[in-house]
Amino acid sequence: MKLQHVVESQQFTVPLLMELFGRTRQMEKIAARGGTNDYHNRIMATLFYQPSTRTRFSFEAAMYRLGGRVLSTEQAGFFSSEVEGEQLEDTIRILGGYSDVIVIRHTQAGGAKRAAQVSKVPVINAGDGNGGQHPTQALLDLYTISRERPIEGLSIAFIGELDRGRTVRSLAYLLSKFERVKIYFVSPPEMQMKADILEHLEEHDVWFALEQDTAKVLREVDVVYQTRIRPERLTDRGSHGRYTINASVLQTMKRDALILHPLPRTVEIDKSVDEDPRALYFRQATNGLYVRMALLTMLWDEQ
Amino acid sequence: MKLQHVVESQQFTVPLLMELFGRTRQMEKIAARGGTNDYHNRIMATLFYQPSTRTRFSFEAAMYRLGGRVLSTEQAGFFSSEVEGEQLEDTIRILGGYSDVIVIRHTQAGGAKRAAQVSKVPVINAGDGNGGQHPTQALLDLYTISRERPIEGLSIAFIGELDRGRTVRSLAYLLSKFERVKIYFVSPPEMQMKADILEHLEEHDVWFALEQDTAKVLREVDVVYQTRIRPERLTDRGSHGRYTINASVLQTMKRDALILHPLPRTVEIDKSVDEDPRALYFRQATNGLYVRMALLTMLWDEQ
Amino acid sequence: MKLQHVVESQQFTVPLLMELFGRTRQMEKIAARGGTNDYHNRIMATLFYQPSTRTRFSFEAAMYRLGGRVLSTEQAGFFSSEVEGEQLEDTIRILGGYSDVIVIRHTQAGGAKRAAQVSKVPVINAGDGNGGQHPTQALLDLYTISRERPIEGLSIAFIGELDRGRTVRSLAYLLSKFERVKIYFVSPPEMQMKADILEHLEEHDVWFALEQDTAKVLREVDVVYQTRIRPERLTDRGSHGRYTINASVLQTMKRDALILHPLPRTVEIDKSVDEDPRALYFRQATNGLYVRMALLTMLWDEQ
Repeated sequence: MKLQHVVESQQFTVPLLMELFGRTRQMEKIAARGGTNDYHNRIMATLFYQPSTRTRFSFEAAMYRLGGRVLSTEQAGFFSSEVEGEQLEDTIRILGGYSDVIVIRHTQAGGAKRAAQVSKVPVINAGDGNGGQHPTQALLDLYTISRERPIEGLSIAFIGELDRGRTVRSLAYLLSKFERVKIYFVSPPEMQMKADILEHLEEHDVWFALEQDTAKVLREVDVVYQTRIRPERLTDRGSHGRYTINASVLQTMKRDALILHPLPRTVEIDKSVDEDPRALYFRQATNGLYVRMALLTMLWDEQ
Repeated sequence: MKLQHVVESQQFTVPLLMELFGRTRQMEKIAARGGTNDYHNRIMATLFYQPSTRTRFSFEAAMYRLGGRVLSTEQAGFFSSEVEGEQLEDTIRILGGYSDVIVIRHTQAGGAKRAAQVSKVPVINAGDGNGGQHPTQALLDLYTISRERPIEGLSIAFIGELDRGRTVRSLAYLLSKFERVKIYFVSPPEMQMKADILEHLEEHDVWFALEQDTAKVLREVDVVYQTRIRPERLTDRGSHGRYTINASVLQTMKRDALILHPLPRTVEIDKSVDEDPRALYFRQATNGLYVRMALLTMLWDEQ
Repeated sequence: MKLQHVVESQQFTVPLLMELFGRTRQMEKIAARGGTNDYHNRIMATLFYQPSTRTRFSFEAAMYRLGGRVLSTEQAGFFSSEVEGEQLEDTIRILGGYSDVIVIRHTQAGGAKRAAQVSKVPVINAGDGNGGQHPTQALLDLYTISRERPIEGLSIAFIGELDRGRTVRSLAYLLSKFERVKIYFVSPPEMQMKADILEHLEEHDVWFALEQDTAKVLREVDVVYQTRIRPERLTDRGSHGRYTINASVLQTMKRDALILHPLPRTVEIDKSVDEDPRALYFRQATNGLYVRMALLTMLWDEQ
């Protein structure tokens, strides 16, 4: 059960998820006392071809809380000579001589897999392409839910621009491994979840429904997974309010529902929601630190 | 007297300044022997929406000399998804889960205050907007002067583009807390110090004068605080020489005067001045390291 | 024999090279066990005015394997206020107060020398200008060769855009210090090695020849030092294949030849070559880590 790379969420079996979540609980405690020095001679390289300060900081903070060091790029694509034709594979081979793990955010779906195929050190996919994956986000999402309730039997609504949502894609793969999960995809028709995910769910006998109406769904589900909506992408420009969570929508939701969001948000969750105990999105972001600490130890530890 | 955030120079009382300067003296000694490891499990996040390699390095070096770690951005605005509408407040809330202090340089006056209002970890303002503040610069300026002579009774000339000078603004606030200080603002009329600072000085009974002529002022003052002058901003284009310090101007100044400059400089201090013992601007920059070390310990230590 | 700065390859005498290579062997062992903590209170500043993720990471990883800390810039020119007229010399003086070594990549030949002249901490040239030098690359190149065979009596072919090749320039200077070396410069006539290097070789009685035909040379030499060829720079556009190494060219080379490349490559070495035992370019990149570790210790250690 040794973990070699973290490329896509499908690779995580339920036992592997259970081990990860157990370690993550440990990491919460370790981080609370400022971290450990156990991995002081490990070096992480963060190779980001797309900028994301939050995701990068989350990985780098995880490394620091484990005692290690970080080689960091804010925007490898903008700055490196790869624009002149350098091969990703060559870069990965070279960085493997300088570091003990490579965290890559690539612009194209499959970029992380290409990196893992040639790398002599573990590779972690920190998001690749709009139609690609973001497996560590899905893992921290699932961990956040699992801290509150069992995944089995869960009902969840994904809301937003689902056609471009790599976090939703990755989480849907994970949920399909659990029994009796019900998934609602709530989105304007022109942005609905793509066919490959729906087919995967059918193959795994996961119940799902495609919806446009949030009102009906929100009062039923255990988890509302909200994602970004850019009003300018909507065919019906003024309609983004129909997908927004605000104080009045809150009143229709279950008392013990959980509201998640991968962040950053814009208009789709009103600030008045932040103080509601069901709003978990900031805790969710902090959980990313612990999950990434746990993943790093799983990649390095003998098993 | 616990320090929670460093947002604007007004918040520093004279006793707080004295504590800071006492700690700073300690930090000079600690840095001279390579630093301490006492804060090894602390993480600093530098969130710079405006680039400044020198200021950023000064904060990050302070963190390293205390034994800590750094999450770093060169240009958060350019790279982050905030350009698409992300909220500063959300970013701060998330970073508070990854770090123990946030050093922010924002493009707008008041950006640091907004950050401090929602942050669960201390926030330090590393400059916000052209009309905003840069309090740690003012603190290191004042420390540099106080190492040489008492602040009480000091006469000081600020020279340059004073309307845009956030370092001058921040230092003026600090000086207003001391007795018998005399301030000359020397600038082309179109760039003079703004009314809010002048009103603040009047309220605090601080003597000041607005001048255009450096010659008269420079032979009288204890401290010359030179700032940048861009010739292209002057109505009278060729007149920037009137505000420049060079070898012949040096001869008119007091023998024990101090010449400060927040750097970077362009034409306003000639290189021939660098070797003069009154030129303190490089020592001033190094003092920034010690003051920032001291500030960090004040934000973290129990008091 | 104390090393103060690393500015150009000429400054390395043969005894100094031997000391460096001896230390480098030690560093290979130290890095293999994860590094040392001996230099834990040292700070490196990487000041890159030209982007190069690989070179920067190599220096920074060297620092980490020695236990130290890093102040890092991806693109100082793009971000700093130097675009508005700040002086390199001032920046170096300031950074000398924050760090224990400055690694500079400058856009202009001579930039590193200018920095060294005013710096109070050691300066390392990480490449300056297209016609300048890249001495640490030449040192790691020479180390890679010396691990396999004696430099004395070596025959080597440099292939590619030699007029712009600062790594080739730097290595040619180093090779001129050894006996009985034979150098072939193989390049389209419009990109041949510049006169200053050829004159230097003549002065030092080094045998060299200017060639256009790789076929003849490749079967004779001990080392093939391939460099980048951009097809769009060639007068005869389709001719870049004449300078490419692929499976069939491999068959014409000596059985124990060494193939080096400073990387990144584009079309000039086919991927099919990577698995050949003569292909040393990835090991060469990793050797950069060890050589840079050794250089840092030579700059800091009492001698």
